[in-house]
Amino acid sequence: MRHWIVAAGLAAGLGGATLISAAQAAEPITLKEMGSFHVGGKLVEISGKPVKEVALTPGGVPAKIDPNGTYQTGQMYVQYFIPQDQHGAYPLLMWHGGGLTGVTYETTPDGREGWLNYFLHRGWAVYNSDAVERGRAGWSQYPDIYKSEPVFLTNANPWERFRIGDGAGSFSADPAKRKLLPGSQFPAEAYDQFFKQNVPRWTTNNEATLGAYSAEIEKVCPCVIMVHSQAGEFGFEMAQKHPDLVKALIAVEPAAVPKVQAPDKLANTPVLMIYGDYIEGDKRWPTMRQRGTDFAQAIRDAGGTVDVVNLPEKGIKGNSHMIMMDKNSDQVAGLIQEWLADKKLYK
Amino acid sequence: MRHWIVAAGLAAGLGGATLISAAQAAEPITLKEMGSFHVGGKLVEISGKPVKEVALTPGGVPAKIDPNGTYQTGQMYVQYFIPQDQHGAYPLLMWHGGGLTGVTYETTPDGREGWLNYFLHRGWAVYNSDAVERGRAGWSQYPDIYKSEPVFLTNANPWERFRIGDGAGSFSADPAKRKLLPGSQFPAEAYDQFFKQNVPRWTTNNEATLGAYSAEIEKVCPCVIMVHSQAGEFGFEMAQKHPDLVKALIAVEPAAVPKVQAPDKLANTPVLMIYGDYIEGDKRWPTMRQRGTDFAQAIRDAGGTVDVVNLPEKGIKGNSHMIMMDKNSDQVAGLIQEWLADKKLYK
Repeated sequence: MRHWIVAAGLAAGLGGATLISAAQAAEPITLKEMGSFHVGGKLVEISGKPVKEVALTPGGVPAKIDPNGTYQTGQMYVQYFIPQDQHGAYPLLMWHGGGLTGVTYETTPDGREGWLNYFLHRGWAVYNSDAVERGRAGWSQYPDIYKSEPVFLTNANPWERFRIGDGAGSFSADPAKRKLLPGSQFPAEAYDQFFKQNVPRWTTNNEATLGAYSAEIEKVCPCVIMVHSQAGEFGFEMAQKHPDLVKALIAVEPAAVPKVQAPDKLANTPVLMIYGDYIEGDKRWPTMRQRGTDFAQAIRDAGGTVDVVNLPEKGIKGNSHMIMMDKNSDQVAGLIQEWLADKKLYK
Repeated sequence: MRHWIVAAGLAAGLGGATLISAAQAAEPITLKEMGSFHVGGKLVEISGKPVKEVALTPGGVPAKIDPNGTYQTGQMYVQYFIPQDQHGAYPLLMWHGGGLTGVTYETTPDGREGWLNYFLHRGWAVYNSDAVERGRAGWSQYPDIYKSEPVFLTNANPWERFRIGDGAGSFSADPAKRKLLPGSQFPAEAYDQFFKQNVPRWTTNNEATLGAYSAEIEKVCPCVIMVHSQAGEFGFEMAQKHPDLVKALIAVEPAAVPKVQAPDKLANTPVLMIYGDYIEGDKRWPTMRQRGTDFAQAIRDAGGTVDVVNLPEKGIKGNSHMIMMDKNSDQVAGLIQEWLADKKLYK
């Protein structure tokens, strides 16, 4: 059962990401299809609001804007890439974390191929999405439709919170003065490029987000789902809701998991959970990982299979919260690829 | 000089979009590279605001969110696809219109390949973007950073305003009761899918938008730029600012153009302007087109080349404002392709 970890570990030891040659990444990607769609959501009415006067151009004469009417809310965006030669047993859905979009899985901030390309090169059909309220999904008025204000991050926040720097005070406006965790794999020189990927988020849209993910699953799956950070909760919720459609779940640094309610629903969905480095020294991550591993044990107790990988224990060190952007991102992708193959999900 | 129009007209007459076989669209797309980046923008300071504690997931470990600090604003998102076999003399940049994102050029609402795929199939390197404040570009706080409130559209608005239905009152919540313009090429049955692509917009960010487009041009060009609707103004501004880098401009239903200030800067940039059907019967479009054609004449007077195509005059009827989504989108793309070839921009 642990064969895949041994294999990945060996490959890591040899300096390669996976048993598949790294040279493959330079090969072209041949797509049978590529495209996008929106899915999910509903229409809502806004009524009884006063007509506003808005200056449509700076200093312009205000125009009357009537905010009343029917609006779309709760849809999500999905971009898909279907390789000509498919080797994944099912499509691979990629769900990003909080305050981010599908850009998470595209080119790394320092310009290397991201996990989207990695899995396309290996013949996976990939569905990369922007969740409700993020990116190309669009977002809705608050407080009329969304029930809270959006949260914006300062440029110091992810550096200090994503285990790139050593917590509060490690960021500086001057890149030369930023304190990177020792041995970090994050491409710190490209942090400002990463920060441009951050988008506003809300804290009150989980129901809408789950509704849209459910609609995506009903349209696209059976599938394998890869989730990151905030989407940990969404992935486990959806795997419990659609046990016949979610054939495996890969949770990369899940920042949250659902309450243990129906772990038996996950009995037939193999799960891989991956955590990076520097967790013990962090303020929040020991608790978040504990919740994840407790949840993993509950699934095992209900007859399921969960592999929890703490990368440093496998000799893979220096990973931040943004593992798919770290300099050894291909190495960790290789570990995931091996796990999928071991679960007979790769042909 | 009019050869390309004759050729496109002939192809149209034969029921094909272009002299290149329509069967080509079913061929795979082989990409040498694909990826994304953010470009442009600046850092701004917010100070003097109280610190908030926010549970980033319901029941999650609360994180302190200090709204004071340094924020990123004004960046844009660019996704690129570089074919293995390139035939475009330069990369082709696609800029979407107001309240929309790069999704404009992806799959049509009724599921056909969009112009992104059309031009990839023909060997163009395509850079498709989300402008400042839209989609994966992210957006910024108002009124702290942006100087106005966002504008949201009701689901009736684009139907009535984009010459899909016959103006005010033509939309209904019941799809069966929506009044489509007679002979319309818009895939009306998929209007609700199109509406999900709409995102909020502001009216006070032109300067930031132009700054980011300029940064994109400096990074990617020399190039050909295709603009739609609101981006008409941005395209002409940028072609004047970067006359050596913008090798041709294709303005699809430009909703606005700049003031005539430096038309001589466009003397060496061939321009194609395309307008769809039903303009005479519309409330706003006769004025908008007149401004466009006046601007075209000013460029010609300064020694430049502008081809203005009113599609119905070429026998191509029924086009809405969203020409790249209309059922005859390939036919119009074919006309653009022929024009580019005629301008020696295709090899």
